[in-house]
Amino acid sequence: MTEKDTLTDAITAQGDAVRKLKSAAKPDKAKINEEVQKLLALKEKLKQLQLADGSEPVAAGGAKTPVTPVAEPGNRNLSLKTAKGTRDYGPEAMALRQRVLDQVVRVFRKHGAETIDTPVFELKEVLTGKYGEDSKLIYDLKDQGGEILALRYDLTVPFARYVGMGNVFNIKRYHIAKVYRRDNPQITRGRYREFYQCDFDIAGTYDPMLPDAECVKVVAEILTELEVGDFVVKLNHRKLLDGMFEACGVPADKFRTACSSVDKLDKTPWEEVRREMIDEKGLSDETVDRIGEYVTLNGGSELVERLAKDEQLSRIKSAMEGLEDMRLLLQYCDILQVADRISFDLSLARGLDYYTGVIYEAVLKGADDGDEITVGSVAGGGRYDNLVGMFNPKRKQVPCVGVSIGVERIFSILEAKATSKTRTNETEVYVVSAHKGLHLKRLEILNKLWSAGIKAEHSYKLNPKLLVQLQHCEEYQIPYAIVLGDGELARGVVKLREIVSRKEEEVPLDALAEEIRKRLPA
Amino acid sequence: MTEKDTLTDAITAQGDAVRKLKSAAKPDKAKINEEVQKLLALKEKLKQLQLADGSEPVAAGGAKTPVTPVAEPGNRNLSLKTAKGTRDYGPEAMALRQRVLDQVVRVFRKHGAETIDTPVFELKEVLTGKYGEDSKLIYDLKDQGGEILALRYDLTVPFARYVGMGNVFNIKRYHIAKVYRRDNPQITRGRYREFYQCDFDIAGTYDPMLPDAECVKVVAEILTELEVGDFVVKLNHRKLLDGMFEACGVPADKFRTACSSVDKLDKTPWEEVRREMIDEKGLSDETVDRIGEYVTLNGGSELVERLAKDEQLSRIKSAMEGLEDMRLLLQYCDILQVADRISFDLSLARGLDYYTGVIYEAVLKGADDGDEITVGSVAGGGRYDNLVGMFNPKRKQVPCVGVSIGVERIFSILEAKATSKTRTNETEVYVVSAHKGLHLKRLEILNKLWSAGIKAEHSYKLNPKLLVQLQHCEEYQIPYAIVLGDGELARGVVKLREIVSRKEEEVPLDALAEEIRKRLPA
Repeated sequence: MTEKDTLTDAITAQGDAVRKLKSAAKPDKAKINEEVQKLLALKEKLKQLQLADGSEPVAAGGAKTPVTPVAEPGNRNLSLKTAKGTRDYGPEAMALRQRVLDQVVRVFRKHGAETIDTPVFELKEVLTGKYGEDSKLIYDLKDQGGEILALRYDLTVPFARYVGMGNVFNIKRYHIAKVYRRDNPQITRGRYREFYQCDFDIAGTYDPMLPDAECVKVVAEILTELEVGDFVVKLNHRKLLDGMFEACGVPADKFRTACSSVDKLDKTPWEEVRREMIDEKGLSDETVDRIGEYVTLNGGSELVERLAKDEQLSRIKSAMEGLEDMRLLLQYCDILQVADRISFDLSLARGLDYYTGVIYEAVLKGADDGDEITVGSVAGGGRYDNLVGMFNPKRKQVPCVGVSIGVERIFSILEAKATSKTRTNETEVYVVSAHKGLHLKRLEILNKLWSAGIKAEHSYKLNPKLLVQLQHCEEYQIPYAIVLGDGELARGVVKLREIVSRKEEEVPLDALAEEIRKRLPA
Repeated sequence: MTEKDTLTDAITAQGDAVRKLKSAAKPDKAKINEEVQKLLALKEKLKQLQLADGSEPVAAGGAKTPVTPVAEPGNRNLSLKTAKGTRDYGPEAMALRQRVLDQVVRVFRKHGAETIDTPVFELKEVLTGKYGEDSKLIYDLKDQGGEILALRYDLTVPFARYVGMGNVFNIKRYHIAKVYRRDNPQITRGRYREFYQCDFDIAGTYDPMLPDAECVKVVAEILTELEVGDFVVKLNHRKLLDGMFEACGVPADKFRTACSSVDKLDKTPWEEVRREMIDEKGLSDETVDRIGEYVTLNGGSELVERLAKDEQLSRIKSAMEGLEDMRLLLQYCDILQVADRISFDLSLARGLDYYTGVIYEAVLKGADDGDEITVGSVAGGGRYDNLVGMFNPKRKQVPCVGVSIGVERIFSILEAKATSKTRTNETEVYVVSAHKGLHLKRLEILNKLWSAGIKAEHSYKLNPKLLVQLQHCEEYQIPYAIVLGDGELARGVVKLREIVSRKEEEVPLDALAEEIRKRLPA
């Protein structure tokens, strides 16, 4: 099946989903909107593919009538879409995202982190030369007669600029913000051009592996709390990788390029990576085969001891330094009770050039009964001791280590897992008119509730139907309604209705806020 | 005093402030960084002024040595700054901002709002033609061979696009996000090119003034809770304004341009506005003088009744419709107990073209003993019933009303008011070594605390000095320390120290988390 076929099927399925939602007895506008967004994104993706291969753009989703009039051309001069690779987030998506981000922040804060913020764009030169080949994915701003600017590509480089430029010598900070990459969006896999990163970094001159081990702990805590499924945090060390390359006969100027090849091992079979190193990178068969023996290795402390005795590696200083770090890191991870979550893995390389020590990557294990099929990276990071100096006027270095949580993948996983509708508001009570002519009374009561700190709403119609008001409560999962009627009001009481059970009881008007508060969860 | 003089003075003062911070016994790096940012922004502003008027860029801040090496040229090839009109926010600024935004969100949520998010950039055509002359302030993205994009200028137009494009027929949403304007930054007045907006809008077809009154209530609640000082919410109505112009003899095609002139009355004396309307807008002396009589009027319900009897206005349908709305709005505001916060003010016009009904603007009153000098707008909004239709494929309109809280001004005011250092972390306990060789024990205890949900930290040094660790607690306002020592550990206890009082007591190791939790505020 080609990518186009997959997409066409996805569009048909999504179209059906939207139609189903629209035909519901009580259509959920926000949900429909969200699903339409996804549909539009899929269609856009298909259009791009068709444009790319020159095929005629055909109507996707079969011969059915268009799901949304948005796609109808002719009756408007404005394209009704968000920019390529971006989407709107409706109330339900936002409620889930907010819940996840709150959990992530709670862990960051449990480890003492402060937060900072940096501008969404930087001087272009700040970003130049930091991302290797990926620099072509940077969004540039138009030169409108001022500075040359670009949207941030990650949060690490702005953090290093902040630390270096501000002469900060130690900080433990988290930063949750969106970053921008002109990548080929893969909407079906939840990959967008605008997406959140959640970074936690420790900058400062400290003793080896103490901050590094805490980063592993933070990742493990977050992934455990979010219940995204079984995962493993792969660990390796740039110095060990370099030492291994040296031991295998890779010339020093090819360490980084060899590293990029090894980095592909999570998605590409060894045979292919092997050929790339020989044919494209110009390494000898013998060298590459020796690399091949190392990169299949993974384990725990026993692997550290085995490598320490390795005849070739033990002659190389940087390899032994890297191993010493790994020994310490594994000891600390043991004490922090994350030993069962980690794997010292010589095939882990990480793409970015700026890492100088320990590197991490957390991957989810597939759910296929015991098969350890990894379904992708959900966090990554490492030590970068030489980045801050680039941004310090006196070139003073501040060593850093950090992790970035791939929260967008986590959103997608949890969105797919969600079985019930996420609540999107926090309203505690809805003030309902039982009959006409009560809107002023509603306002009076609402005002009292708001003053008492109760979250309260009502219909913005003068004389809404009773049933419509109660249906609103059910649709928005509002737990209580106060039903006003002349009879009760004359006696100084109102009906307090619990929406789920439909139980009603009378409560005195002058103790309304307290009566409601009593019934709310503390 | 010229603007340059003011700036030069501000730079000198700011330079002194930075030097003072740097010379403190325990320099606060984050604070210094923030103040240096402000200094650099001031210098940049001065440079722009000097470049603009051709004067020689002279060293600002007197003959003293440069405050920060960042300004030293020569020893680097990278400019160390954030983009013009933007700044970094360090931990302290962020703590204040977070607290304010939390309070704003709490009010939005109390009124039942959900939240949505839209991309930071839009197709340029979405923004075109929405902001009148201010369109020149839009940040464009570079054409990198795809769509023509621009950064969002406000949150209202993206909201209208979301509602229209998604066929949403009713939603009450808030959106807190940054917007971008290539304005002349006025750093001294807290005006940046990247800044937050906090918008609350109600979209849907409802009965007159019920949503509009709730918007006034929301603004009043937020400004009251934030304790920014005394304020007034000015109210007016576009239909009444148009009716007034008609009554005074302004031709219909000049209503909007007359409106822009009137809009200047909060900053410009009537005589100047009068001349503009006559000389530039081509209105007759008589017409303008009649306008002049109306725009000095402000008050409450009595003004509504007076205008209803006005001979000229009462002949004009739209004026009477506007007045009817105002009558209802004032009645509702009365019930919602915000009557003392509002002023029906015929000089309020609001710049944006898209308003169609009630318009609002909240201004802070000056603190100068009773003098009602307004120190600027902190919230604004109004009804815009014809914007969503532009983004709906069938041109279907969804009436909207909303307010935007000018939270950046509020940040500045509260920052200036702040007397004590804002806490930037939430750490509850710091795990301290009393002597060498205890780092593994620290990790073990930290792990237990984290598992129990206690927010805990330690030094990332193997053998930190006791005094340094306790000073860290004071500096970061951490309430408790656990002090580990071999003697106590042998007895299965540790010392629990309250940092402020310096009181210490022994607690058993195996009840550590509970003992700490007992002492923390619930």
